[in-house]
Amino acid sequence: MRVLILGGDGYLGWPTALRFSGTGHEVTVVDNFARRRWHLDAGTDSLTPIVSLDERLSAWREVSGRTIEAQIGDIAEGTFVADVVRDVQPDTIIHYGEQPSAPFSMQSVDHAVLTQQSNVIGTLKLLWAIREHVPDAHLVKLGTMGEYGTPNIDIEEGFIDIEHKGRRDRLPFPKLPGSLYHCSKVHDSTNLHFACRVWGLRATDLNQGVVYGIETDETKLDERLMTRFDYDQTFGTALNRFCVQAMIGHPLTVYGLGGQTRGFLNILDTLRCVELTAENPAEPGEFRVFNQFTESFTVGELAEKVRHAGGELGVEVTVEHLANPRVELEEHYYNPVHTKLPSLGLEPTLLSETLIESVLHGIERYKHRIIAEGIDPSTQWRQAPVAQPAK
Amino acid sequence: MRVLILGGDGYLGWPTALRFSGTGHEVTVVDNFARRRWHLDAGTDSLTPIVSLDERLSAWREVSGRTIEAQIGDIAEGTFVADVVRDVQPDTIIHYGEQPSAPFSMQSVDHAVLTQQSNVIGTLKLLWAIREHVPDAHLVKLGTMGEYGTPNIDIEEGFIDIEHKGRRDRLPFPKLPGSLYHCSKVHDSTNLHFACRVWGLRATDLNQGVVYGIETDETKLDERLMTRFDYDQTFGTALNRFCVQAMIGHPLTVYGLGGQTRGFLNILDTLRCVELTAENPAEPGEFRVFNQFTESFTVGELAEKVRHAGGELGVEVTVEHLANPRVELEEHYYNPVHTKLPSLGLEPTLLSETLIESVLHGIERYKHRIIAEGIDPSTQWRQAPVAQPAK
Repeated sequence: MRVLILGGDGYLGWPTALRFSGTGHEVTVVDNFARRRWHLDAGTDSLTPIVSLDERLSAWREVSGRTIEAQIGDIAEGTFVADVVRDVQPDTIIHYGEQPSAPFSMQSVDHAVLTQQSNVIGTLKLLWAIREHVPDAHLVKLGTMGEYGTPNIDIEEGFIDIEHKGRRDRLPFPKLPGSLYHCSKVHDSTNLHFACRVWGLRATDLNQGVVYGIETDETKLDERLMTRFDYDQTFGTALNRFCVQAMIGHPLTVYGLGGQTRGFLNILDTLRCVELTAENPAEPGEFRVFNQFTESFTVGELAEKVRHAGGELGVEVTVEHLANPRVELEEHYYNPVHTKLPSLGLEPTLLSETLIESVLHGIERYKHRIIAEGIDPSTQWRQAPVAQPAK
Repeated sequence: MRVLILGGDGYLGWPTALRFSGTGHEVTVVDNFARRRWHLDAGTDSLTPIVSLDERLSAWREVSGRTIEAQIGDIAEGTFVADVVRDVQPDTIIHYGEQPSAPFSMQSVDHAVLTQQSNVIGTLKLLWAIREHVPDAHLVKLGTMGEYGTPNIDIEEGFIDIEHKGRRDRLPFPKLPGSLYHCSKVHDSTNLHFACRVWGLRATDLNQGVVYGIETDETKLDERLMTRFDYDQTFGTALNRFCVQAMIGHPLTVYGLGGQTRGFLNILDTLRCVELTAENPAEPGEFRVFNQFTESFTVGELAEKVRHAGGELGVEVTVEHLANPRVELEEHYYNPVHTKLPSLGLEPTLLSETLIESVLHGIERYKHRIIAEGIDPSTQWRQAPVAQPAK
């Protein structure tokens, strides 16, 4: 099939492009290099030395004999995304093309506006372009488990059957997003649902957990094919960041008590989930939501696992509880359903000590590139710093 | 108190400004004249001949001896709204400053983008400005009953107690917005809720029904004080539009079967609801939602009422069922709770035949100004026109 991948130069977008190209699909990637620019602005960088998109594409041609097309531009600007959709005529659109960081969105009013504008307006223009040019295409949109927050009931996959005052309906699952970035993803879901209900589009919202891992089958084939790996306070996520901290003797920075429970998945499973979703598209008019993670941990448990794996490699790792820069419950109920992707065939790659050790080994190789200054959090969710928690 | 009214040149914003100024509050209005511009672009106009904002303000000074301040600008642009909030230091902010039309938002991708950008980014900038400059101010935000759509259960006021798999929580009421405009209001509600939960702001979301009526106690005082009255396909709402159609011998245009039930309220009650809300602010950190309407009718019932009232005035009125340009259920359950505003003291002005007759009389006076071409709907929710319904 013809596959259009928005955000195809990113941590997940690039390996996804390689996977779909490697399995015989016609792939076009779209990117505006926003992530590379934001790193330049902040003085941070990917741990892994990534080459330019042009070099990546040439390397892939050399290694695989296959061609990935690229279109450079911003989906929120002008008619760019409509032009691309019209020209490419994709069967499947995989949409990673958003500002993906919660701390980024909380840094200032300009960061908040940039986040909601890029994400919501970009996706709205995409929906309209699909309606105009490829109304039968299947949109696979990356959402986040963070849209749900931590309600005191089991989290269902997108919709919940509610019985209320003797009547019943199946309605969108209520959302409690934890940052203005997470709010933007909720807005996207509302717009997607509308476009499916009213225009008859077909879309799957992948409410993804926290992804970890440094390589995929395809990125391993050649050093020029490796994907980015972020560990800074803005774009680094818990497990990847902990692994980098372990390797440079920096205490693992656990925010608050560390009792926050989140869903996690391996980057290999992200690719498999997106593949399974694309192979089993939503029906016309259908808005599906899959909760895309494989297991849940508390942040404290994750830190403990990294400490232990480090120990096995002879690295001494300590854990530091920082005042939580975020506003979130540090002890809460968390039991999200995640059966739809397994029912399509997902066989999870669970987090093992060996797996953490392999990430630590991967980091070891680029240890000299680590910019330690970018790791500790400086963005506060509230203006006044939150008091240091009791330990 | 110091009251800042965004959209203070509009149908509801202007009478609200007069009411708060008349009751002794220090009022500043903000507007960018977007509604006046959109009418110019479309070749439509208010039924009532409204004077410029400057003339309105002078007339009010003359009539009441009181001064309303004005700041002209776009809250979604630059630092305008932050500057105004910083300078005015309001105790209460009443936010009508949004693109308020569902058909407008469905007209083209540019109209959809303008709607979500103005509304969501404007409100996001406002929230950040409140956080920075007046964190204790009470935000009174106009939402819409259309955020909820027509679920098959009773609609609560913003939140619903859900029991699910043996556990309970009180969560945001699920939303099924019916246009990209309605989606923008859902996005706003999500951002407002976040700002209250995380920043401790205080806000009341007024999910308003369809407003009808042509004058208030203050707009009646002088012809230069009258408010706008829209009846065109884009900004006119059901009852006001029907009354204009009746007076020019145009059939009342009921969309589809006319079984769509909606909540309605008189413009006098809008003012009273906003007053009651401002006088009884939300607590710090509290996000309240009030369902702001006084009674429900089907669109068909409304048309029948107007037909009957017209008959009493000797005007023969016919009803025409047009193919519904919208995508909405034409027969559905509808039972929204609306007890919070009455419990604060709202005494509804219900829709009576006398009241419709008085609106018809009000219209009679400006009958010569009616632009009949702008009334019939041309914006389709779906690309292909929807089939004519069975009658």
